[in-house]
Amino acid sequence: MQGEYNLGDLAVRFGLGLRGEPSLRVSRVATLSTADSGSLSFLANPRYRKQMQSTRATAVLVGPDYAADCPVAALIDPNPYLAYARIAELLHPQPPPETGIHPSAVISAGARVAATAYVGALAVVEDDADIGEGVFVGPGCIVHRGARVGSGSRLISRVTVYPDVRIGRRCILHAGAVVGADGFGFASDAGTWVKVPQVGGVRIGDDVEIGANTTIDRGAIDDTVIEDGVKLDNQIQVGHNVTIGAHSAIAGCVGISGSATLGKRCMIGGAVGIAGHLTIADDVVVTGGSLVLNSIKQAGSYSSGMPTVESRKWRRMVAHLRRLDTKER
Amino acid sequence: MQGEYNLGDLAVRFGLGLRGEPSLRVSRVATLSTADSGSLSFLANPRYRKQMQSTRATAVLVGPDYAADCPVAALIDPNPYLAYARIAELLHPQPPPETGIHPSAVISAGARVAATAYVGALAVVEDDADIGEGVFVGPGCIVHRGARVGSGSRLISRVTVYPDVRIGRRCILHAGAVVGADGFGFASDAGTWVKVPQVGGVRIGDDVEIGANTTIDRGAIDDTVIEDGVKLDNQIQVGHNVTIGAHSAIAGCVGISGSATLGKRCMIGGAVGIAGHLTIADDVVVTGGSLVLNSIKQAGSYSSGMPTVESRKWRRMVAHLRRLDTKER
Amino acid sequence: MQGEYNLGDLAVRFGLGLRGEPSLRVSRVATLSTADSGSLSFLANPRYRKQMQSTRATAVLVGPDYAADCPVAALIDPNPYLAYARIAELLHPQPPPETGIHPSAVISAGARVAATAYVGALAVVEDDADIGEGVFVGPGCIVHRGARVGSGSRLISRVTVYPDVRIGRRCILHAGAVVGADGFGFASDAGTWVKVPQVGGVRIGDDVEIGANTTIDRGAIDDTVIEDGVKLDNQIQVGHNVTIGAHSAIAGCVGISGSATLGKRCMIGGAVGIAGHLTIADDVVVTGGSLVLNSIKQAGSYSSGMPTVESRKWRRMVAHLRRLDTKER
Repeated sequence: MQGEYNLGDLAVRFGLGLRGEPSLRVSRVATLSTADSGSLSFLANPRYRKQMQSTRATAVLVGPDYAADCPVAALIDPNPYLAYARIAELLHPQPPPETGIHPSAVISAGARVAATAYVGALAVVEDDADIGEGVFVGPGCIVHRGARVGSGSRLISRVTVYPDVRIGRRCILHAGAVVGADGFGFASDAGTWVKVPQVGGVRIGDDVEIGANTTIDRGAIDDTVIEDGVKLDNQIQVGHNVTIGAHSAIAGCVGISGSATLGKRCMIGGAVGIAGHLTIADDVVVTGGSLVLNSIKQAGSYSSGMPTVESRKWRRMVAHLRRLDTKER
Repeated sequence: MQGEYNLGDLAVRFGLGLRGEPSLRVSRVATLSTADSGSLSFLANPRYRKQMQSTRATAVLVGPDYAADCPVAALIDPNPYLAYARIAELLHPQPPPETGIHPSAVISAGARVAATAYVGALAVVEDDADIGEGVFVGPGCIVHRGARVGSGSRLISRVTVYPDVRIGRRCILHAGAVVGADGFGFASDAGTWVKVPQVGGVRIGDDVEIGANTTIDRGAIDDTVIEDGVKLDNQIQVGHNVTIGAHSAIAGCVGISGSATLGKRCMIGGAVGIAGHLTIADDVVVTGGSLVLNSIKQAGSYSSGMPTVESRKWRRMVAHLRRLDTKER
Repeated sequence: MQGEYNLGDLAVRFGLGLRGEPSLRVSRVATLSTADSGSLSFLANPRYRKQMQSTRATAVLVGPDYAADCPVAALIDPNPYLAYARIAELLHPQPPPETGIHPSAVISAGARVAATAYVGALAVVEDDADIGEGVFVGPGCIVHRGARVGSGSRLISRVTVYPDVRIGRRCILHAGAVVGADGFGFASDAGTWVKVPQVGGVRIGDDVEIGANTTIDRGAIDDTVIEDGVKLDNQIQVGHNVTIGAHSAIAGCVGISGSATLGKRCMIGGAVGIAGHLTIADDVVVTGGSLVLNSIKQAGSYSSGMPTVESRKWRRMVAHLRRLDTKER
C-alpha cells in the first residue's frame, strides 16, 4: 500500500526547500542507484554523492550544500535523512491496525485485553496480563502473567514477555526478543552454585524499539530499566539491574553486564562489551568492537576495537607486544 | 506470594549469627538503598558499604567484619551472599508446581508425559519424547521426538529441544533457548559446501541452568556434553561436541567453538570467545572479552580483553603497535 | 533409521580406493575412539592420527598418505572428510518427507501451500505466503504474509519469516532464526530518534543454511541478499542491505553491520565483527575474534584477535601499549 504525493505538497508539509517542478509526483522511495521515475531518493552520506549524478529518481532529498549538484528535482533540508524518514513513512504507511483476537490465541480468563488491541494467531496472554489500547500482539507471542504492554505498542511476532514486566507505549519488539528472563545470579557454595532468586522486574519506557532475539533480564531485587526512546538492535544482551538512559542507541550483538548504568543519548557500536557495576556518562560514543571495563565519566568517543591486518603481520604484532613486557622487566 | 519470618527463626534455620532483636520480622528482600521496614538486605560487595550506613532495612545480612558497622539488626555469616540466596528463596517462594496438560497443547500419541508434569498452552511434545515427574513445560515450548526432560526440570517458555536430546533433573531453560540444533559441519567440495550429517546428540546433566536465547548444538558423531551444575547465561553459543565440566559458570554472549573441552568449576566472563579443539583445565577463570585460542593447562586467571580509551588515543596506540613491527624487521 | 552397506559397494558408489575385505559391512559412523564393529570412521585431521592406531572401527576413511597406517580396512580418498559426509548421509538418511498440514496449524485462506509440503503443529502461514513443493515447515514456525519458501526447504522449528522475504530452494533454517526483521535505521532529531521505515526485503538463495537464533534484517530500501550456498552458523547478526557472496561460510556469533558486502567463498571465523559500508573481496579468510573496520581488497587471511595470557601479564601488556603512546609524543 503506497501513497502518491507531489513535491510541492511534500515541501509544504515538511517545511522543505524545493528546487524543481512542484507538480512532479513520487510514490515510493529508492536508493540513488536503483531509483526510477516516480521514486524519491536521498543523499545523506557524502560518499554516495557520485551516485546522485546519474540517478533516475524523480526527486532527491539533499542538504543545502548539495542541492546545486542534483541533476533532478531537489527537496532541500539541513537534515535530509530525517526528512527522508518522515516522507518514507508517508509513502509506505503501516497497514491500518487490526483489532480483535484470533480464534487460535489463548487468552486466560484473568487477562485484560483492550477492545482496540489485536492478539494474533497462537499467541498466549496469561492471567493478570494487561494489553493496552491499540496494542498489536503478533502470532506466537507469549505475554506472561501480570505483564503490561502499554498502548500502541507492537510485539511483531514470537516475542516473550516474562511475568510482571512493564512495557511502555508505542514500543516495537521484534521476533525472538525475550524481556524479563532471570538474571545470572548465583552464590558460590563450596564449588557449586546456588541460584539467587531474581525477584526484580523490567521497566521499559515509551517509544523503545527492541530488536530480534535481544534479551533483557529482570532485576535481582530492583528493576532493570530501559528509559524512553532507547533503540536496541538485534541480539543484544542486557543483564539484570542495568539502566539504559533515554534516547541511547545500541547496535547489534552488544553485551551489557549486570548493574551497569548507561547515560542518556549514548551511542554504542556493534559487538561492544560493557562490564558490570560501572557508570557511563551521558552522550558517550563507544565505537564497534570495544570493551568497556571502567566507568566513563565524560562525554566523548571511546574505543578499543583492534582492526584486522594480514594474519602474518598480526601474529608478529602480538609477539612484539608480548616481548615489550619481557624486555622492560 | 511471600512468607514472613522473624530474625531469630532465620538465624536458627540457616545457622547465622544475630546482632539485634530476634523478634523483628522480615517479609521481603531489598537493596540497601531501597529497603524499608520489613525488608532484609545484604552486604556482599564492600563497595556498597557506605549505603549500609543509611539503610532503612529491618535487618542486613553481613560478613563478620562488617557486623559492627551495621546500623540495624545484622544476620551474620562468612558468606552473606549465599545466606541471602537461601533466605530470598524462602521469602519469595516459587508458586506451587502446576500439573496437567493445557487443552491447547499438542501432545503426540507416542509421547510420555508424567502425571505430575505440566505442559502449558500451545506447547508441542512429539512422539517418543519423555517428560519426567514434576517437569514444567511452559507455553510455546517444543520438545521434539525422542527427547527426554528429567524430573523437576523447568522449560520456562518457548524453549526448543531437538530430537533425542537428554536433559537432566532440576534444570531450568529460559525462553528462546535451543538445544540440539545441527552443528556447523560442512566438507569442502571444489568451492561449495556439502553438509556433514550431525548424528550425535546433546546430554545435559542435573541442575543446569540455560539462559534466554542460548544455543547448544548437537554433536557431529558423539554427543555435546554439559555436566552437572553448569550455569549458562543468555545468548551463549556452544558448538558441537563441546564438553563443559561440572559447576562451570559462563556469562552472556560467550561463543565456544566445536570440540572444545572446558574443565570443572571454570568461570568464563561475558563475550569471551573460545576456539575449537582445545582443552581448558579445571578452575580456570577467563575475564570478559578475552579470546582463548590455545589450550590452558593450569588453573588461574587469563585475559586478553583490551579496555577502552579515548578514540583518538586508541588510534595512536594501534599505529604504535603496527610501527613496532615495521621497526624491528 | 540406518542403512547397512558393504565396503565394496561404498567404494564403487563413491569412487574410493579400498584396502581390505570388500564384503565387510558398516551401518553407522563413529569417531576413531568410540567406534566398534560395524562402524565406519574417518581421519581428516592429522592430530587424531594416533587414535587411528587403536580404533575398533570396521573401516576408516583416510587420505592416501595415511592408508598404510590404518590397522583396519581403509576406504581411500584425497578428501576423506567429503567422502565421509556423503557416506554418513547414506548411512543416516533423513526420515522420508512428511506431507500435509497438522490440524493445529493456522493457515490463512490466502496462503498457498503446495500439496507435497508439510506444515507442522502450531505453525502459522499468513495470507499470500507461498510454501513450495516438498517444503517442511516445522512446529511453531511463522511465515508472515507474502513470504515465499522455495521447494525442498526445511524450517526445522520455531523459525520466523517476516513479510515478503524470499527463501530459495533446499535451504535449512534452524530454530529461533529470524529473517526479515526491521534493520536498525533511525534518523536523529534533536536528541531523539525517528524510525526510518525499512521497506526493503530479504532474498536468500538456494542451498543456504541458517543456524539457530541467527537474525537477518530486511533492507532499508533495497534487499538484503544472501547468495546461493552460503552457510551461516548460530547467533549471527546480519544487518540491513548486507550482501553475502555465494558459498561463503560464517561461524557463530559473527555480527555484520549494515551495507557491508562480502565476497564469494569467504570464511569468517567465530565472533568476528564486520563494520558497515565496506567491501570484502572473494576468498577472504578472517580468523576468529577479529574486527574488520576497513574494506579488504585482496584474497588472503586477516586477523586481529588477541589471544589470552595470564591476567597479570595481560595487564602489564596493556600498560606498555599505553606508555608507548605517551613516550613517543
